[in-house]
Amino acid sequence: MSRFVVIGERIHCISPVIRKAMDEMDPEPILKRAKEQIAAGATYIDVNIGPAESNGPELMKWAVQLIQSECDNVALALDTANKKAIEAGISVYNDVNGKPLVNSADAGDRREYLDLAAANGAACICLCSAGAVPGSVEEIQGFCMDLLEHGLMLGMEPTDMWMDPLFLVAKGMQDKQQQIFDAIKFFTENGLNSTGGLSNVSNGMPKELRTKMDCAMIAMAMSQGLTSAIINPNDKNMMDMIKSCDILKDRYMYADSYLDL
Amino acid sequence: MSRFVVIGERIHCISPVIRKAMDEMDPEPILKRAKEQIAAGATYIDVNIGPAESNGPELMKWAVQLIQSECDNVALALDTANKKAIEAGISVYNDVNGKPLVNSADAGDRREYLDLAAANGAACICLCSAGAVPGSVEEIQGFCMDLLEHGLMLGMEPTDMWMDPLFLVAKGMQDKQQQIFDAIKFFTENGLNSTGGLSNVSNGMPKELRTKMDCAMIAMAMSQGLTSAIINPNDKNMMDMIKSCDILKDRYMYADSYLDL
Repeated sequence: MSRFVVIGERIHCISPVIRKAMDEMDPEPILKRAKEQIAAGATYIDVNIGPAESNGPELMKWAVQLIQSECDNVALALDTANKKAIEAGISVYNDVNGKPLVNSADAGDRREYLDLAAANGAACICLCSAGAVPGSVEEIQGFCMDLLEHGLMLGMEPTDMWMDPLFLVAKGMQDKQQQIFDAIKFFTENGLNSTGGLSNVSNGMPKELRTKMDCAMIAMAMSQGLTSAIINPNDKNMMDMIKSCDILKDRYMYADSYLDL
Repeated sequence: MSRFVVIGERIHCISPVIRKAMDEMDPEPILKRAKEQIAAGATYIDVNIGPAESNGPELMKWAVQLIQSECDNVALALDTANKKAIEAGISVYNDVNGKPLVNSADAGDRREYLDLAAANGAACICLCSAGAVPGSVEEIQGFCMDLLEHGLMLGMEPTDMWMDPLFLVAKGMQDKQQQIFDAIKFFTENGLNSTGGLSNVSNGMPKELRTKMDCAMIAMAMSQGLTSAIINPNDKNMMDMIKSCDILKDRYMYADSYLDL
């Protein structure tokens, strides 16, 4: 069984430092965060350039080539609402360490991102929602099967569609958390990969609680079979928790030094 | 849904301080640990007097009356290989905060502890083992059903038999961890309560790793439906993790102060 796949979330245009670096095409802030995340154990680096309406293709190409050339062709998730930017990124992408990961399709307006992934030999995160918060696990299952069928028709491998149950904030949507665990269990029972923006769960909580709640969520979700998450790999508590859960899932051999590996 | 039930493990004759206090019938060290554990959130306090061959009944009676009289009749788990000592403890036990919990029956030589519990109106921890490490989840299921059937024949409520999957050390028995999760899932699907000596999982690990591994195990086990564990409630990391998992299981309403509640 493969180890849990960490997708590092810290190259995101919502960060002022990254926004400025992208505006100015300044390599250093972006490479710094890429290297920090890889050193902490990220397998994929998410590159979120935002809507990027004016220069999306140019910006994504630049970012992909920059990060891959300086970081041993690390695998990347390409994250933007600009489809042409994703295609441009894939056109210069080196897949020696993993297919490019399109972030993301959904079962509503973004269904066509799956077509884009299929046409470009990419993997694709599939958000099991059609825009609104799913009302039940059955609804999530329906979206999952719809997206899966669509991807299979396009010739994709089922394991290249990473199902996202839509992690929701606990503060206000506590009664929705069980549906997320049930959805992950469903993905697992069907042999599918899964991922998602896990730290949504702790949105709005005091800072000192966020890492504790995120750690509880990742362990409970891994217990149901979650195979990946989009997180901050520089939160050492989270990475220690993921490694400990991987040990309990017998994904690699225990050593007293396992947290350092 | 009820909150997770923490059974505090710190009144145990393996501790030199407690051993001495039991030998001398010195109340203070025992009360100190009882109060510390209750303050940290323990619902039950385990009272382990060891084999206690010479003075078991007298010692258990003394301990039960001492702790309950000074700690608002806190619920207790009575833990000894001396059956007469358990009966003596129950004879003076006040069940206003919960039935006495016999620790423990198993499916081998200690099957008769279930008879003892049934005859005395107690609940009982049922270790799903017959002495050896169970070879498979199917074996655990078999022991569970055997003990359950026996208890039901004796007139016990199914929820008064707390099934113990036998937590095992990860360092050396990594490949057995999944069977523990599968066993807990089985108990949950059958509506049964469950508990066990959770910190077995981290035996032999360096001290700084133990709390991390224990936290990973409790969250993963709670995700499968574990309803209780025998732990050190004065490990704040563990209690924070349990409270966070209870929030995610929607067992009480989120508040920013939930870790203090």
